[in-house]
Amino acid sequence: MLSLRVLATGKANPAIEVSSAELDKKLNRGSGFTQKKSGVVIRRFSAPNESQSELAARALTDAVRNAGIPSSSIDLLISACGVQEQALPSTACAIGAHANLSEGVPAFDINASCLGFMMALKVAASLLSTGTYRRIAVVSADQPSRGLDWDEPEASLIFGDGAAAVVLEKGNDQQGIRSFLFKTYVEGRQFCEIRAGGTKCNPSKGAVDKDYLFRMNGKQVLKLVSLKMPDFMNELMDQRGILLDSVDLVVPHQASHLGMAHMIKRIGLDPGRVVNIYETHGNQVAASIPTALHEAFATGRLRAGTRALMLGTAAGVSIGGLVLDI
Amino acid sequence: MLSLRVLATGKANPAIEVSSAELDKKLNRGSGFTQKKSGVVIRRFSAPNESQSELAARALTDAVRNAGIPSSSIDLLISACGVQEQALPSTACAIGAHANLSEGVPAFDINASCLGFMMALKVAASLLSTGTYRRIAVVSADQPSRGLDWDEPEASLIFGDGAAAVVLEKGNDQQGIRSFLFKTYVEGRQFCEIRAGGTKCNPSKGAVDKDYLFRMNGKQVLKLVSLKMPDFMNELMDQRGILLDSVDLVVPHQASHLGMAHMIKRIGLDPGRVVNIYETHGNQVAASIPTALHEAFATGRLRAGTRALMLGTAAGVSIGGLVLDI
Repeated sequence: MLSLRVLATGKANPAIEVSSAELDKKLNRGSGFTQKKSGVVIRRFSAPNESQSELAARALTDAVRNAGIPSSSIDLLISACGVQEQALPSTACAIGAHANLSEGVPAFDINASCLGFMMALKVAASLLSTGTYRRIAVVSADQPSRGLDWDEPEASLIFGDGAAAVVLEKGNDQQGIRSFLFKTYVEGRQFCEIRAGGTKCNPSKGAVDKDYLFRMNGKQVLKLVSLKMPDFMNELMDQRGILLDSVDLVVPHQASHLGMAHMIKRIGLDPGRVVNIYETHGNQVAASIPTALHEAFATGRLRAGTRALMLGTAAGVSIGGLVLDI
Repeated sequence: MLSLRVLATGKANPAIEVSSAELDKKLNRGSGFTQKKSGVVIRRFSAPNESQSELAARALTDAVRNAGIPSSSIDLLISACGVQEQALPSTACAIGAHANLSEGVPAFDINASCLGFMMALKVAASLLSTGTYRRIAVVSADQPSRGLDWDEPEASLIFGDGAAAVVLEKGNDQQGIRSFLFKTYVEGRQFCEIRAGGTKCNPSKGAVDKDYLFRMNGKQVLKLVSLKMPDFMNELMDQRGILLDSVDLVVPHQASHLGMAHMIKRIGLDPGRVVNIYETHGNQVAASIPTALHEAFATGRLRAGTRALMLGTAAGVSIGGLVLDI
């Protein structure tokens, strides 16, 4: 087991609450269209002047407060957002600037799309294990509202903005990562994407406005994930001698109502043991898993002695799973 | 010491060689202007159809060939580029698609601007140390030519495109990271930046073409780095009992001729023990350090039993140092 202790979690709410009924009106859709199509009742969008890094820093500050520690005691900041705030420098630098950390605290980004937080947990646990750092903050914040194509209901109505954070240390003998598995199926790298924003597609390469918007082929993702999931679960759980029954709570990526329902059915999960914040948050990209984790801690569903299974899929296409003994 | 072995390095050359004399003509400058201003004699730019991920994959393939291993034996791919290929998904997914790795090999990005490669080495060593992975590829590729403002000589003439890669494993008792230090001074996060490309500045937020171009205030960077460097070197070397004299070769980020000269003088390095590929490559962003590392291995300046010191600064502003026993 790789030792890891979640000292505390935190969350930040973007400024604007948007109901599916409001989106129906905005998009000239019939009453009930958005909620039926997306499964989301209400989600939050950032205000125009609310930056991704400020949102992230508020979540981090909340986690630090919940941990009862001085923010100056954090010795590494990892940003694990699905999309960057700007092309250069890393988003972590901007988050650090709003977070009142000690001068010079190292800051860098990990990007694994919607699963960046999970990969960051594994990296953080490894860095704690090797004694490189002693108290690491991981923050995920995303603002999908800044890059949605409202002409594409499937790829727009499911999203909400959000941010969540954790403060991590080495754990005791019973706390840590029991199992971890991450697979990337690069044949699906164009199933979910924003083509612009980097070297591939920009004004000098003739980019048009639509290139800056998210596009998705949900059916292709579902097909690929369905094909790979059984072997994935076997390798994550069975081959490491971990019974699904030993998991107290599943903390999934809140991809979509259909995606989550499909996963619950496919794997044979008990819906009563799955954190579901999708109806009230939507898909918050990389912020989904830490936000669900925060809700699980805040409501006492996760506490010392319990076992969590984080599970999800990401643009790329990646599948990730992490069994954490709290 | 954190065990780490560089199994092999690799490099890829972008298609087009561009002399400073050619840039003089293109930019309507007097003969000798570009070389005098930048210190670069020749650099390479990517062809219009040459993607960042293809360039990266070629460097990776070269490293794999130099290692004499099957590419299918790599069990983790880390992309450590300064700028992404596109906003979503991570650049590693596209690199993996061109690199003929095993199906499902996990892929994610680390972004610490020009020091991403150094941070990725530390993360990779930690992941190898905890047994998470056994053979990790780290690749850095950047194409600054896609985002330069030619009206700003200081922030454009110094750059060249490039890609380099390493294949890593756990080392023997004598091989690995002797010292590592990374500091981020977020007060300098706007000294070097590309404002667009993410949630902050895009078509929906009124971005203009210039926002997609790199801008830099070199004087402010130099001032900040000069102020912090003495304490940084003390913490990286002296406090860990490592003498500068014990370093066989310094592998610096090839930031600029002035920046490198300043660092050599400030720290009191012997220029004969510093890898300098700047005149023939320019500043290749995150690809600079691994390209310099590759040259050092290719020319036999680094080999088993030698000690390297990687050192550099990055947008953010970060300073990083890593002492590696080969």
